[in-house]
This record gives sequence, C-alpha cells and structure tokens, in this order.
Amino acid sequence: PRDVRFSCQDWMRTVWEFCKEDSNRVIFSLKVGLAVLLVSLLILFRAPYNVFGTNIIWSILTVAIMFEYTVGATFNRGFNRALGSLLAGVLAVAVGQLALSTGQVAEPFIIGFSIFVIGAVTSFMKLWPSLTPYEYGFRVILFTYCLIIVSGYRISTPFLTAMDRLYSIGIGGIVAVVVNVLIFPIWAGELLHKELVNSFNSVADSLEECVKKYLEDDGLDHPEFSKTLMDEFPDEPAYRKCRSTLNSSAKLESLAISAKWEPPHGRFQHFFYPWSEYVKVGAVLRYCAYEVMALHGLLHSEIQAPYNLRFAFQTEIQEASSQAAELVRCLGKDISEMKRSLDTCLLKRVHSTTERLQGAINMHSYLLASNYDPPDDSSKPLPKLSHASSANTCDLTNQLSALDNAAPEGNSDRQIQNTPSGTVPPLQTESYHELMRKQSRKLHSWPSIAVDAFEEEGGFAPDIIPRMRALESTAALSLATFTSLLIEFVARLDHLVEAVDELSTVAKFKRELA
Amino acid sequence: PRDVRFSCQDWMRTVWEFCKEDSNRVIFSLKVGLAVLLVSLLILFRAPYNVFGTNIIWSILTVAIMFEYTVGATFNRGFNRALGSLLAGVLAVAVGQLALSTGQVAEPFIIGFSIFVIGAVTSFMKLWPSLTPYEYGFRVILFTYCLIIVSGYRISTPFLTAMDRLYSIGIGGIVAVVVNVLIFPIWAGELLHKELVNSFNSVADSLEECVKKYLEDDGLDHPEFSKTLMDEFPDEPAYRKCRSTLNSSAKLESLAISAKWEPPHGRFQHFFYPWSEYVKVGAVLRYCAYEVMALHGLLHSEIQAPYNLRFAFQTEIQEASSQAAELVRCLGKDISEMKRSLDTCLLKRVHSTTERLQGAINMHSYLLASNYDPPDDSSKPLPKLSHASSANTCDLTNQLSALDNAAPEGNSDRQIQNTPSGTVPPLQTESYHELMRKQSRKLHSWPSIAVDAFEEEGGFAPDIIPRMRALESTAALSLATFTSLLIEFVARLDHLVEAVDELSTVAKFKRELA
Repeated sequence: PRDVRFSCQDWMRTVWEFCKEDSNRVIFSLKVGLAVLLVSLLILFRAPYNVFGTNIIWSILTVAIMFEYTVGATFNRGFNRALGSLLAGVLAVAVGQLALSTGQVAEPFIIGFSIFVIGAVTSFMKLWPSLTPYEYGFRVILFTYCLIIVSGYRISTPFLTAMDRLYSIGIGGIVAVVVNVLIFPIWAGELLHKELVNSFNSVADSLEECVKKYLEDDGLDHPEFSKTLMDEFPDEPAYRKCRSTLNSSAKLESLAISAKWEPPHGRFQHFFYPWSEYVKVGAVLRYCAYEVMALHGLLHSEIQAPYNLRFAFQTEIQEASSQAAELVRCLGKDISEMKRSLDTCLLKRVHSTTERLQGAINMHSYLLASNYDPPDDSSKPLPKLSHASSANTCDLTNQLSALDNAAPEGNSDRQIQNTPSGTVPPLQTESYHELMRKQSRKLHSWPSIAVDAFEEEGGFAPDIIPRMRALESTAALSLATFTSLLIEFVARLDHLVEAVDELSTVAKFKRELA
Repeated sequence: PRDVRFSCQDWMRTVWEFCKEDSNRVIFSLKVGLAVLLVSLLILFRAPYNVFGTNIIWSILTVAIMFEYTVGATFNRGFNRALGSLLAGVLAVAVGQLALSTGQVAEPFIIGFSIFVIGAVTSFMKLWPSLTPYEYGFRVILFTYCLIIVSGYRISTPFLTAMDRLYSIGIGGIVAVVVNVLIFPIWAGELLHKELVNSFNSVADSLEECVKKYLEDDGLDHPEFSKTLMDEFPDEPAYRKCRSTLNSSAKLESLAISAKWEPPHGRFQHFFYPWSEYVKVGAVLRYCAYEVMALHGLLHSEIQAPYNLRFAFQTEIQEASSQAAELVRCLGKDISEMKRSLDTCLLKRVHSTTERLQGAINMHSYLLASNYDPPDDSSKPLPKLSHASSANTCDLTNQLSALDNAAPEGNSDRQIQNTPSGTVPPLQTESYHELMRKQSRKLHSWPSIAVDAFEEEGGFAPDIIPRMRALESTAALSLATFTSLLIEFVARLDHLVEAVDELSTVAKFKRELA
C-alpha cells in the first residue's frame, strides 16, 4: 500500500506540474466541460426538447467535434462545418428532387450513384495538397450529404428534418464559439507570437551553450560519439529546445492557419494581420538553427582541435558568438514587444567582431606552418594567439610524432583509454604535454570501425602513422570549420534581420529610434 | 472562351498528373465511394431499415469518419471508436442508474455534473503528450457519453436505443474495414518502408549533386546568397527532396503508429514487426542529412574557396563523396530488398578514401604557407595538388594585395560587380589572374551590410585592407570546412550502418554473404 500511495503521489505531482507549466490546459478542459454542460441543458430542460425533439442531440455532437484548443481553430472548424453542411444540403436537395422526378424505379439508382460520386470526389479532393487544411470540411460534406439524401428517401418530411437538424447544429456551434471566445479565450495568434519569440531565444541560448562547451573543455574525454548522436544531451537544455525549433515548422503553420481566422484581439488590433510573415521569419530562423546544429555536431565530433588552439581563439569566438546571440535575442525581443528598435550599431558590432575572428583565423592558418613572420600591418594584436605562438605549435607536431613512434601499432590507445582519468589537475597548471597526450587519445579512436577493420587484417602497420598525422592536421582544421560555421551563422543573421524588418513593416510595429 | 478551355485543359492535366504520380489516390477515392454506397444500400433496401429504423444513419456517419487512407490508420480509428464507445456506454449506463436511483429532483443535477466532469477530463487527457495519438478516442467518449446519458433521460428505452445505435455503428465499422482491407489495401507499413528507402536515395542524390556543383564551378558568379537562402533551387531537385526528408519525422512517426495496427501482410510476414526501428533509422539518417544541408549552405555561401583549390582536391572529394553516396544507396537497397548484404569492404573503402581526403587536406594546410618542403614519406602522390603548388598560392596572395591597393576605398567593388559578365572564356584557358579577380569580387561583397555601414561613416579606410586579407584566407579555409563536413558525414555513416544493422537483425532480414 505504501508503494501505491507513493506512485500515486508521484503521478499527482506530474499532473500538477503539467498543469502549472501551462494553465491554459486546465482552462481549456473546464471550458469544454462547460460547453457540453450548457448544450446538455437544452435537453435536460423540457422547453427546447419539445421544440426540436431528438434532433437536439446533434448540438451535442457539434460541440464535441467543433470545440478546439484555440479560438482560430474553433472558427476554422466551425466554418468548415457550416460551409460543408450548406453545400451538402443544397446538393442533396437538388439531387433528391431530380431523383424524385425520375420515378420510383430509377430513384434509388440515382441516389446510390450520387452517393458513390460524392464519396469519391470529396475523398480525392482532400488529398489535394492545397486543400488538406479543409480535410474536415470534406468529411462533413460527405456524411451530411449521405444523411440528408438517405433520410429524404425514407422520411416523409426530409426538408423539415434537415431544418431541425441544421438548427440544432447551429445551436451547438454558437455555444461552442461563445464559450470559446468569451471565457478566457486562447488565441492562436498569441500562441504563434510567443512560439516565435521562444524560438529566437532558444537559438540564441543554444548557440551560446554550444560555444561555451566548446571553449571550456576540461581535459576530460568526451563521451563516445556513438552514444551521443541520438542522445538527449541532458546537460544541454538549450540544445534540446533548439532541436525542437527545427521540428516546429508544422506547428507554426497550423497556428498561422488558425490565427488567420481570429478577429483582431489583444495586441493584434488591425485586420488582416500578417500571420504568414511569422511563418516566413520562422523558416529563416530555422536556417540559422541548422548552423547551430552543425556546430553542435562538431562539438560532439570525435575529431577535436587541440585545446590550446581553441583557447588561443577564445576571446574572438566568445565575442562573435555572444554578440550574435545578443542580436538574435534583440530581434526576438523586438518581435515580442512589437517594436522596431534595431540599432544598426549592434549589427555592425556583430560584423566587425566576426571580421576580427576571421582575421584571427587568417593568422592561424600561417601559424600552422613552421617559418612564418607575423605581418607588421595587423591593426589588432592578438594577445592569446601570441601566447600560443608558432614555436608551441611546432612543439605540438614534434611531440605528436614522438608519441606516434611510441605507440607503434595503434593498439596502445585502448590501454590509455582504459586508465581512469579521475584526478585531473586544474586546467591552467596542466602541462602542455599532458594536454597533447589526451588529444592524441581521441585521435587514435577515430574512426573506430575502420581501426577495428584494419586490425583484423593486420597488414596496415606502415599506413597507420601517416593517417594519424593527417588526422592531427585535420583536428586543427576542425577549429577552422567551427569558426566557418559560426561565420556562416552570422551571414545568415543578415537574412534574419531582413525578414524581421519585413515583418515589422507589414505588421506595422512601432518604430523606435534607439 | 479559348482562355477558359485552355486553363481547363491545364487543370485537367494537373489532376491527371496528380493521379498518375500515385495511383493509390484514385483507388482510395473509389474505395470511399464504394464504402458509403454499400452502407447506404442498408437504407435504400427495405429490410435492414425495418429492423434498425433511423438509427441506421449512424453507420453512414461511422464510415465517413472511420475510413482512412491506410489500413492501419483505419484500424486505429476503429479501435479508438470501439473502445471509446464501449467505455462511454458503460460509464453512461452506470451513472444513469445511479442518477435514477437518487430520485427525480437530484437526477438532472447528477447528469449535468457528470457531463461537465467527463467533458473536462477527456479534454485534459487528450492534451497529455503520450495520449495525443488517441485524441479521436477521447472525442468519441465525450459525445457518446453525452448522447447516451441524455437520451436515457428523455427516451423511455435508453438501453434498446443504445444497442440499436451500437449495432449500426458496428455495421458501419465492419463495412469500412472490409472495403479497406479486401479491395486494393493500402498498407501503412508498405508506405513507411518505401518512404524510408526514398529518404536514403534522396540523401545520397543530394550529396552527390551538392559535391558536383561545388566542383564544377564554371567561373560565373553565383546568384546572390540573399536571393537563394529561402529559394526553391529549381536546378537542384535532389536538394529539395533531401530537405523534405528533414521534415518527414512526423510523417514517419504517424505511419509507424498506423503500421503497428496492421496484421502481417505482403513482405512483412511476422507478427510484431519492428516498425519503430524504421523511425529510429530515419532519425539517424536525418542527422546525416543535416550535414548535407550544411554542405549545401556552404555551396551557396558567398565566401568560396578559389576554384583552383577546389580543382586541386577534385579527385579526393569526388571519390569520398561518391563512395559515401554509394554506401548510403547500398543501405537503402538492402532495406528495400529486406536483405543484409553489406560487405564491410564498401565501408572500409569509404573510410580509406576519406582518410586519403584528410591526407590531402593535411598537405594543403602546409601548401598555404610560403616556405614548405613536402614530406618525403607521403605514400600517395597528389598529382593535382602539385599543379596548384605553393608558388601559385604565393602568387595568389601577392596578386590579391596588389588588387587591394588598386581599390583604395572598397567602393570599386560595386563598379566591378556591375560590369556584365556575359563573355566568359572557357575554364581551362582562363588566366589565373582572371579567376582571382572574380574571386575577389565575391570577397568584396561580403558582408554587404557591413560594407555599407562602414562606407556611411567613411573613416575605416585603413581597416579595409587587412579585412580583405582575412577574408581571402578564410575563403581558402572554406574548402577545409567543406571537407570537414564531408568527413563528419562519413563519420555519421558509421552510426547509420549500425542502425540499419540493428533494424535488419530485429526485422529478421535475409542474410546474404557478399
């Protein structure tokens, strides 16, 4: 019994947190309850029942089917239902009259054939890509048509029945709409607005998180890539949010479709508010998020630039990424507050820090080689770069090749990997050699399947050393890749700025001069 | 009238192509027509109508609502409907009896309250993430409960009415299922299988397409990035398919949910076929597709490596990418034919060509510097690399700086850009200087907003020259980025191979030793 009480408590807590996370969920549930209760009163009281008879149950059905989470979606469903019923009704009455005039023998054939045709045509039309949002409408046409024409064949007063049913559907629809709009309305437009702003923040957060992790390598081995490719990355909450941004296109689109049905409300006071622009901005933002995903992939790749190289560029990478993130957040804030305050100053700053990063990388591409004099005309000194000077990088190469000679067959990496790495001295005091040794460990372990394969065959010993060297160099270039992706991210920001600017123009955001 | 006839012809052709693209669409439409016709016959003939009365219309409703595209989805809906109706029926009868026993005054209150509670609880539960697939079931519970309990209050024989209705719903359900399964069944499992195989092919195609475009630069300026970020890329059909692969996660998941409801059929003969593994493989494949997207982004980026550099690595890049694509296609083919034939030979080949590419890049990182002797121990000569030798790359830098001096303010790039580039001589004969000049044009134009900003303020002239230099170097590194992404793609292929292997084990594919 204790276990049961315990798991029950657990369950209650989960439910409670689910409610607290978004109180709209509770509000929505209570509203549905209220709507069906109101419509049931029509039957529980005697007066309306006497008027409509059993047809009144159609109003319950309507409420249950029409009541959606947001106001826009409810309107959309209602519209589908109303137009569908109307079309079906007109068609059914017309075909019914036609069938009736042909006489008793032909009548059932005509009716049957028309049902077949309507069934086939509506089903075909709802597969058509541009008509899929109205899928529900086609369903309504189909069954309303069937109901009316078939009832008309059996019931003596088809028109009266149809009218009664239409009235009760109308009552159900009105109850659903009134409850949905008047009691704590949940606007699709508001949700779309918030969703987009959140996407901006999550892209900015995950960029910063990714760069921070990239730079703060603590000398410990990364978890194996094989285990983390599909992982949830529990220590990277922003990444998960960003990943969900990538899959949010369908959500944004359906919210935009719903939002178009909503009357002006709250902050969105003018008619024909450009909700589709939100979807476009979301798409451009997604293209930025692809770059963040690529950066994240690099962060968890097994080929890593030596830590000292990353450390050398720390300032530049940090600055560029944090300013880019700030710009993204600033754009998100502008949308959130529906104003247009972007000072080009910020954009300029992002560009100039990105250029400084490029300058630093330029320097580095020469540092990699042995005999290179830094140019005298470089306007900005790179303090950290000089600290990881060319001499050091030379050492790196020498030490690595020494290490390679010490590990003749590529088998020893396994042993090194198995030693527990519990007592790691703090970063700054760790010897250069130590760092390099760790680095080489990772290099040995890539690509794991290939190494195994070669080991099986056993005849590739002379090949192994050049391969390592190649990898070492590629490892250094992985930093260049990281920065290139970062630069590409910044380049895409221009498009994002443009898209947000477009949105703010079309949606008539307040202009604020900063 | 001619215009009308013309557009009508156009429209007919579009519809015809839509049908030809997937004949299942037509089959599905005709099946729906047939199902509603069959169920209408119940009413058009006199005998069944005499038994069930007007309740028979519920079977039409059931067919219209339950008939889905695939067999699995229909079963799923049917299950939702059946279980929902049953639960609602039991609940309604129980609460009805309870209310009846409390006397006439309390009865309507208890009924009203129970309706409110059921409405709120079902609406809340369908928001719960793990229960969203059963959304339709909760709707059914709600309206069935309301219908039964309300009818019970007004109609003297609630139980009989409910049973009649249940029978007619059952008839509708049986008709829907029989028509769906027996006449040209469309299996969700089959669709899922094909969809996954197509994704493999589209990733392979778009990788090859992307690399091909990257290497075959014809010396013409790329279209402006700003115009192509959100573009449809009409000349890159494979890219668009690959992009749709990225957004296919929801589709795969819903197909897998449907497929789980299907009995063994066609090629999928054993029970509990592991459809969820398909979703997992699809996810790993999507991670590979992210790299292709990044490659594609680089292809259309404004910072490009000089063509001669790209040409130098042509063989290595070409080989690595085409073998990687072949591996992906091979995996897709294995899934398609439900066999397990992967020769590790192919995987090894991919790895070794990728390593050769890395080796070439390694070489290149030294070639970029001025005084470097190629190492004697390189096992493989790189013929094309020697042709773009270190002396050339030196020239590149000198010429560029000469060009920079000639263009004092960064304004001249505008003029150069405006000159029409109609008469471009063929590639091989084009002078090196010409190529570099074109390259520098692109460099000047990045990042466009920043240049404008600097021009406005006018005081940054001394800064411009180092920036250009930086960009030039970054441009060369963009090749390193391209290859890094390609290498990362290959690294991810290991995981893809693993995932496919897992699938083939769990799904008991035929083993074939190659």
